[in-house]
Amino acid sequence: MKVIVVGAGFGGINAAKTLSKDKNIQVVVIDKRNYHLFQPFLYQVATAGLSPADISVPIRAFFRGQKNVEVIMAEVQGIDQDKKLLKLSNNRTLDYDKVVIAAGAKNHIFNQDWAPYVHGLKSIQDALSLRKKILMSFELAEVEEDPVKRKAYTTFAIIGGGPTGVELAGAIAELARFTLSEDFRNIDPSDTRVILIEATNRVLSTFDPGLSKKAKRALEKLGVSVWLENKVSNICEGKVELGSDVINANTIIWAAGVVSTDLAKEMEGDVGAKLKRGNRLLVNEHLQVVGCDDIYALGDISYFENEELPGIAPVAIQQGKYIGKSIRRLEKGKDIKPFSYKDKGHMATIGRSKAIAQIGKLRFGGTIAWYMWVFIHIYFLIGFRNRVSVFLQWLWSYLTYKRGARIIN
Amino acid sequence: MKVIVVGAGFGGINAAKTLSKDKNIQVVVIDKRNYHLFQPFLYQVATAGLSPADISVPIRAFFRGQKNVEVIMAEVQGIDQDKKLLKLSNNRTLDYDKVVIAAGAKNHIFNQDWAPYVHGLKSIQDALSLRKKILMSFELAEVEEDPVKRKAYTTFAIIGGGPTGVELAGAIAELARFTLSEDFRNIDPSDTRVILIEATNRVLSTFDPGLSKKAKRALEKLGVSVWLENKVSNICEGKVELGSDVINANTIIWAAGVVSTDLAKEMEGDVGAKLKRGNRLLVNEHLQVVGCDDIYALGDISYFENEELPGIAPVAIQQGKYIGKSIRRLEKGKDIKPFSYKDKGHMATIGRSKAIAQIGKLRFGGTIAWYMWVFIHIYFLIGFRNRVSVFLQWLWSYLTYKRGARIIN
Repeated sequence: MKVIVVGAGFGGINAAKTLSKDKNIQVVVIDKRNYHLFQPFLYQVATAGLSPADISVPIRAFFRGQKNVEVIMAEVQGIDQDKKLLKLSNNRTLDYDKVVIAAGAKNHIFNQDWAPYVHGLKSIQDALSLRKKILMSFELAEVEEDPVKRKAYTTFAIIGGGPTGVELAGAIAELARFTLSEDFRNIDPSDTRVILIEATNRVLSTFDPGLSKKAKRALEKLGVSVWLENKVSNICEGKVELGSDVINANTIIWAAGVVSTDLAKEMEGDVGAKLKRGNRLLVNEHLQVVGCDDIYALGDISYFENEELPGIAPVAIQQGKYIGKSIRRLEKGKDIKPFSYKDKGHMATIGRSKAIAQIGKLRFGGTIAWYMWVFIHIYFLIGFRNRVSVFLQWLWSYLTYKRGARIIN
Repeated sequence: MKVIVVGAGFGGINAAKTLSKDKNIQVVVIDKRNYHLFQPFLYQVATAGLSPADISVPIRAFFRGQKNVEVIMAEVQGIDQDKKLLKLSNNRTLDYDKVVIAAGAKNHIFNQDWAPYVHGLKSIQDALSLRKKILMSFELAEVEEDPVKRKAYTTFAIIGGGPTGVELAGAIAELARFTLSEDFRNIDPSDTRVILIEATNRVLSTFDPGLSKKAKRALEKLGVSVWLENKVSNICEGKVELGSDVINANTIIWAAGVVSTDLAKEMEGDVGAKLKRGNRLLVNEHLQVVGCDDIYALGDISYFENEELPGIAPVAIQQGKYIGKSIRRLEKGKDIKPFSYKDKGHMATIGRSKAIAQIGKLRFGGTIAWYMWVFIHIYFLIGFRNRVSVFLQWLWSYLTYKRGARIIN
């Protein structure tokens, strides 16, 4: 049997790994990139703490020597269900018995007119371009004589108080306050304004309200202005408008929501898939795309019919493993239980020594939560080299307040 | 006194460091990049062994807290000697008492028609674009059905048998032979052709002929074809012509010589500087640009009148320190001895366990030379973090044959 896994994120990699244990299954992994990306650390690349290679592993390296796994670097553009063919970007097609769609999500900017003026944070390219923007802002401020422009250069507006927004705000504030503190002669980087804008009445809304409060407090201690219940009404070059308030910010970051990648929309036409909120593919209790028994979907590109699941790595990982096992059991004629998500808790970090955690009925924050966050995230980083490298760089940053990847390129 | 150092390579950084010890001297370091680059390891970035941040240090980080040193990120476009002004890229000018020109060299491609088809290796951007090209070549070969095209994808032509060419050839051969060996299903990366083309009758011509022979032998053992006494007659898209021989190579690398950066040519007009071979600024025995007592030049952008010096880091470092000391002594009314270069030996590496070394009358090659090469190069890497990081990544690569930065982005 030939199973094609589309996308090598958390879900896709776990589906492929589980499938590949059965040597009778031929697995093909397709991704437009040649690497698996540890997305939770993208904000660290954007704020010069880590290098892209620290949070990436070549997909081929995973399956090195596993002859029943083939890796293809290409983009999937559609599915022909009748002929059981996948349509690839380079005009090639690929036949399949089963397909696992794990193509993830992309930034969703509500108003497309705003897109040219904001930075997203979904890819290595996004992170590098944001890093360049942040570091260049300080360089430009240093040589700027007009105080109004200088202020705008050192103002960072972050839209969206979810984990990405919170982590970025904390990291930028620390960069300015500690790392760059003695590096400039004409500006004082600790005067930097970091403004986190959130439409609802709290940050990190998937957490307990008490923890949201803790997180807000920790951000404020780092010098971040947290503006709750503020809706963005317009964005243009270097300007964010919130009703009658206007923020002049050279760097504007969009961290307010995602939408599924284009393949989902394509599949609506190709195989009659149903799309739910955020253009996500509706999947049944077995994670099959409704109406297509041979096509599975998981993670950010899918919408589970039984309950709404958050767009986080543990969901995709559990779904990937479930689909891998399901296909193997089906192959052997065994029956399959419906998928159910086991919430093992979730965490978010705010700067270099604070985090919040919510595990079962337990809710806590502070330095202990931060150590847990560090440990768990390094544990889940794929690749021994990456684990050692990230651990040492964090240790070094922790002790010196320095950051290793402060290069503009 | 205000001294401006143009360029933060090996020479510029050492000049600025030496000058900054005198608190009466105001030092300004100008560079178009925000980081100092350890150029000897660029080939490691190009072949996915190291990340850019491993071989770079922010210039500001060097002079953190040193109030008499200012760093400006800008490009110098010319000098007005009468007004003692430096002309910067952003329409600004900067007054000076003394200037140290340490702006280095760039690739010199003999025939400009060839430039679009070759990769150079003088900057991080060059290295990243070459890394992408090398890694993509294998990806494209894997899905190519035409055997002629497939062969071209896995053919790498390197022009120039100096240290850069030799190091790149060895590293690409090893990448294909060891790192990627079990990663593909349709191609065998160890069939890769790496062809090193040299116009003279030996590689590494600044070394003793016996060592050149050793280096050639070591390259051949890694599977590199070394073509001596071959002159490139033409280059076009994916093709290198050597008289009637034609090599179809998807990747063509130019490692055959450099020329000074544009500032030298500018100074010929601005201050009447004399240019020598490779458009280098002629400097007198005190490293002053001939005819301009207040303007010093060093490293790859300079041509020392007493003897022709090689374009290597130790020359620039010694010259930078010499100029720094000279200016400080002059300030105090002390006399200055002419500059003389102390050759402490030189080395080159070929792959992961061979090197050659020539130190005084000593000449040797092999694994011991390689250990020396590793030790000396890590020692001269600036920044504790970089030293630890590079050391660990090499140790890891050495033990596993893996490379940490195999990402296409």
